[in-house]
Amino acid sequence: MKDIQNEKDTRNVYIQKVGIKDFDIPLHIIRKDNSNQLVNAKARVSVSLPENYKGTHMSRFIEILNEWQSQDIIGSDLKKYIHGITNKLSAKSGEMFFEFKYFIDKTAPVSGLKAKMCYNCSFKSIISDCNTPNESYKFVLGVKVPVTTLCPCSKEISDYGAHNQRAIVSVNISYDENQHIWLEDLIKDVEECSSCSIYPLLKREDEKFVTERAYNNPKFVEDVLRDVVIKLRNNPIIKEFEIDCESIESIHNHSAWAYQKESK
Amino acid sequence: MKDIQNEKDTRNVYIQKVGIKDFDIPLHIIRKDNSNQLVNAKARVSVSLPENYKGTHMSRFIEILNEWQSQDIIGSDLKKYIHGITNKLSAKSGEMFFEFKYFIDKTAPVSGLKAKMCYNCSFKSIISDCNTPNESYKFVLGVKVPVTTLCPCSKEISDYGAHNQRAIVSVNISYDENQHIWLEDLIKDVEECSSCSIYPLLKREDEKFVTERAYNNPKFVEDVLRDVVIKLRNNPIIKEFEIDCESIESIHNHSAWAYQKESK
Amino acid sequence: MKDIQNEKDTRNVYIQKVGIKDFDIPLHIIRKDNSNQLVNAKARVSVSLPENYKGTHMSRFIEILNEWQSQDIIGSDLKKYIHGITNKLSAKSGEMFFEFKYFIDKTAPVSGLKAKMCYNCSFKSIISDCNTPNESYKFVLGVKVPVTTLCPCSKEISDYGAHNQRAIVSVNISYDENQHIWLEDLIKDVEECSSCSIYPLLKREDEKFVTERAYNNPKFVEDVLRDVVIKLRNNPIIKEFEIDCESIESIHNHSAWAYQKESK
Amino acid sequence: MKDIQNEKDTRNVYIQKVGIKDFDIPLHIIRKDNSNQLVNAKARVSVSLPENYKGTHMSRFIEILNEWQSQDIIGSDLKKYIHGITNKLSAKSGEMFFEFKYFIDKTAPVSGLKAKMCYNCSFKSIISDCNTPNESYKFVLGVKVPVTTLCPCSKEISDYGAHNQRAIVSVNISYDENQHIWLEDLIKDVEECSSCSIYPLLKREDEKFVTERAYNNPKFVEDVLRDVVIKLRNNPIIKEFEIDCESIESIHNHSAWAYQKESK
Repeated sequence: MKDIQNEKDTRNVYIQKVGIKDFDIPLHIIRKDNSNQLVNAKARVSVSLPENYKGTHMSRFIEILNEWQSQDIIGSDLKKYIHGITNKLSAKSGEMFFEFKYFIDKTAPVSGLKAKMCYNCSFKSIISDCNTPNESYKFVLGVKVPVTTLCPCSKEISDYGAHNQRAIVSVNISYDENQHIWLEDLIKDVEECSSCSIYPLLKREDEKFVTERAYNNPKFVEDVLRDVVIKLRNNPIIKEFEIDCESIESIHNHSAWAYQKESK
Repeated sequence: MKDIQNEKDTRNVYIQKVGIKDFDIPLHIIRKDNSNQLVNAKARVSVSLPENYKGTHMSRFIEILNEWQSQDIIGSDLKKYIHGITNKLSAKSGEMFFEFKYFIDKTAPVSGLKAKMCYNCSFKSIISDCNTPNESYKFVLGVKVPVTTLCPCSKEISDYGAHNQRAIVSVNISYDENQHIWLEDLIKDVEECSSCSIYPLLKREDEKFVTERAYNNPKFVEDVLRDVVIKLRNNPIIKEFEIDCESIESIHNHSAWAYQKESK
Repeated sequence: MKDIQNEKDTRNVYIQKVGIKDFDIPLHIIRKDNSNQLVNAKARVSVSLPENYKGTHMSRFIEILNEWQSQDIIGSDLKKYIHGITNKLSAKSGEMFFEFKYFIDKTAPVSGLKAKMCYNCSFKSIISDCNTPNESYKFVLGVKVPVTTLCPCSKEISDYGAHNQRAIVSVNISYDENQHIWLEDLIKDVEECSSCSIYPLLKREDEKFVTERAYNNPKFVEDVLRDVVIKLRNNPIIKEFEIDCESIESIHNHSAWAYQKESK
Repeated sequence: MKDIQNEKDTRNVYIQKVGIKDFDIPLHIIRKDNSNQLVNAKARVSVSLPENYKGTHMSRFIEILNEWQSQDIIGSDLKKYIHGITNKLSAKSGEMFFEFKYFIDKTAPVSGLKAKMCYNCSFKSIISDCNTPNESYKFVLGVKVPVTTLCPCSKEISDYGAHNQRAIVSVNISYDENQHIWLEDLIKDVEECSSCSIYPLLKREDEKFVTERAYNNPKFVEDVLRDVVIKLRNNPIIKEFEIDCESIESIHNHSAWAYQKESK
């Protein structure tokens, strides 16, 4: 059977990324407590394609994902998998991106009741100049942390009360491949920068606590962003970070938004 | 050229609804102030198909929508259009559904500044037993109104502050075809049932007002739902209503939710 | 601490449904092969609320979900859980709805290679008139099955080729509580009604097979719908069904759509 | 009333972007035929914030958008608006991003029938080092073009037929501020690179045409990407481009995907 993908292409366009997107795959993620969690990931995996080849072989991405999807992984394992893909497809560079929901037990602040809280997380793994002296690798850990923001202006100018709302702080960090940062720790760092952390299960004594805590700790999106910036700047492991803070304003039908990207 | 759709079908299945979905179309909606607004609608239009026909003629839906899309319409005009479609396709019943964003000028409560506020609205038009003595018609007007809810429990048990958040109150109403209710009026009715209305543009004096107003007016989703229920029960024009109230809790990563459907 | 929710309400509105929505929870689903699969579900859980109570106790929903989420379940187990919730909240009626991604191994038609295919599934559990002689219960199993549709008209009128595309067939069925239908079987039934089944992993020999199979088996959305209708009518276990077939047309930017709902 | 935003901040974090997101606003876009089209845009507008200020004034974004939203604009007009915003907020840099649906009349290839086709488009406007000798400005025009792709491999290896599907080609281009490219022209350029263009309204003779045209013109996502790359490379006005091509495979539940970004 003819292999059309293998035919010669004469348009002289080296393709930077070609592959599969929105592929659902279960993954086993190693947790900080050393247990592992089965997550349902959405994958996007791509490689570069030399100018002289007509197409890449899409089914090979699925075959490789399929082979190792039953293994327990932490983010840093992805290097060997993306390397395996670029080797199998004879590609110079490659990229894997997984988005998944990750559950962490969270304890209510007063009652001490526990329940599972869910966070949207991601792993991104980028390799370039494979198998050359210039080979470089980058891993990006991502998390979207829902928190409460309480408006300092509203608190200051009002005789009582203050508008507050759910906000989503999205953080992407990258660090050297011989280092490791747990999702659990990154999430905790971000939550500490908000007006108050969010919980799945709160009894009345907890609700009193979080209400008063947020009121005592008013923060604009600018404040949340700055506090996360400082925390990530001070973490010597982190080489690059990107922060996106969106506050789903309770008094408007639009969001307040702040963004920062830094390399050290 | 052969007309496959027109061929005989022998499976003996009368199809209740068949047509097109997610069709983008600009529509001219007549406003309460008698001006008109061009909206970008998503349309779903369907008819019934007798058991002995293989298929409906999908292109005819587009042709008919195309013919009248430049005319100014109010909801009640849809009857003649859905009738036109069922007649052209010789169908016993038919349904049109349009979802669109609708802008209304909204005035800030203290500063008096005006800006456009956007609401997701919908028109649904259902006809059955066309051209028979049993012909019946139903029109459903829908709107999703963003509002503020402030938690009565949080206010009561806390020494200061109270958690609040954006909530979406979705309302569908139906009334006789010779009656009319303006989107502007239905939206205002819903907003009055919340802890506080939401605005696109608020200066500091307005922000103080809405913060204190919400604090003085705490409401669970149950309260908002009940107040909307009472308003719609008391409106003699309305024959049926459906209310969905979802509060995007600021202290949780899930929503509080309430729902009611009533016919008079 | 005052229990505001427990206070008396005088508006005389019995609330049909109130509870939580968009709550993420891991569930252990029993599979047809008797193994179990951990899924990430989105939950909506609600109860009715008598006219004389101000509010329901939202945290109790989370507590109950939390208690049993580590157990292995099949759809029919949900009855005892929704009963547990209505009892704990002294409610007359209640409803649970879970949406989740479910993986099934799928074998390519010629190469025999296996890979996991993902389906969006749901369980819905509705109880009313709890603990009265009129108590009634309903379970609804839902699945969204992606398939290929190839247009019979396009094939007939063209000298070669035929447009085809991905279509999503959404099916909800309900059956008596002492009966059981596996997701695996329902999905297979639906796939057999399409122009061709969809696979996660296809080698060249498989791609030839599915291309020719779809071409040999052209189907409108009307045809897919009718064939699913007949299959579900002929299944004596099924008491009610609802089918929504949406074909993401490759020659248009809108979908072809068909819908049917029947009770036996 | 105290102006909290104006207070001094001592954390020493210069914020790159802060503003509003998901703000709905109607805009009047000038079309190639010199008429104008009212579109419903989603806006994200941000400015930089010096390290010594606590917050930006969010309401001013709305006020400025409100002032000029009734004017007819083409993309290049945005420079003066983003300049107005950075000046009013004394910011060094600023960014505006609008996403909107844009309708273009499209003529069926054989019957000649016309109907409106809808495209998701965007304008992005970035200014930095405002009012300094280093001031720089960038405008990015974006469009998502739905097209048909027909698989060359499937055609080659199958005795008859070939799988095909809807694909979305997203293109962002940037060019000097004294230049202009019409959305109408950019869309046409992209459509010509696909297996076949997509239409809102097709009669049987048109359906025969597009079916055969796609079959005669098979393209992988790699082919579509390369052809668009060559077209944009050859356009001397374009300084930078980014192309994302996603094919919603009819034989899989995932997409084939290709991506390229180039600066001249």
